[in-house]
Amino acid sequence: MTHDPRPSLRLHFTQGLTFGRGKADLLDQIASEGSISAAGRKMGMSYRRAWSLVEEMNAAFAQPLVESVRGGPGGGGAQLTETGRAVLESYRAVVQAINADQGDHLATIRALLKSDMPERK
Amino acid sequence: MTHDPRPSLRLHFTQGLTFGRGKADLLDQIASEGSISAAGRKMGMSYRRAWSLVEEMNAAFAQPLVESVRGGPGGGGAQLTETGRAVLESYRAVVQAINADQGDHLATIRALLKSDMPERK
Repeated sequence: MTHDPRPSLRLHFTQGLTFGRGKADLLDQIASEGSISAAGRKMGMSYRRAWSLVEEMNAAFAQPLVESVRGGPGGGGAQLTETGRAVLESYRAVVQAINADQGDHLATIRALLKSDMPERK
Repeated sequence: MTHDPRPSLRLHFTQGLTFGRGKADLLDQIASEGSISAAGRKMGMSYRRAWSLVEEMNAAFAQPLVESVRGGPGGGGAQLTETGRAVLESYRAVVQAINADQGDHLATIRALLKSDMPERK
């Protein structure tokens, strides 16, 4: 059993937008699934919820992060824009840097944990 | 108006404990107020809620993070243990490193935001 803490990062913007792991994962899933509804399903999220998060992100940035794609056999889908990819990559880079550079601090906390605590269901 | 995103960090431990800004701020307030109830009040948190967070943290670590102090005019209070200070300092160090080292990535995201978005109430 490992105690490695998994860091998650949330960015709070002055206009009220927050961007954290949930939205980053949703963008990832949209990129790989090519559809907002399929991405939401993958994340166990309602279609309405997935759309609402996308609309919130699109409204906060100068260019939308997700755009719809017309045509194709499924009647169109969605993909990340250049802005969407840039936001996601920058966010992932910060998280990666935490894991890469902050291991000593995380290990300090981990070493103080109770070692025999059962895992939660 | 600044767009600087404020990063907040949450650590997810395999046993189920999460440690983020709320618990870190509560530990800070306990250290300065010398009492769990006063710390909770400062954070707009019920006594019951503040106690429950402290109990959750104390149960997860090999040594408690907060200990009660007997005596004194107020009939005793609470203070951070050495473990409590170490956890808090390590957590703060990671957050500080994000702010110090990840400015370029945060600026990339900030630069993509809509500049004329009104602040939320």
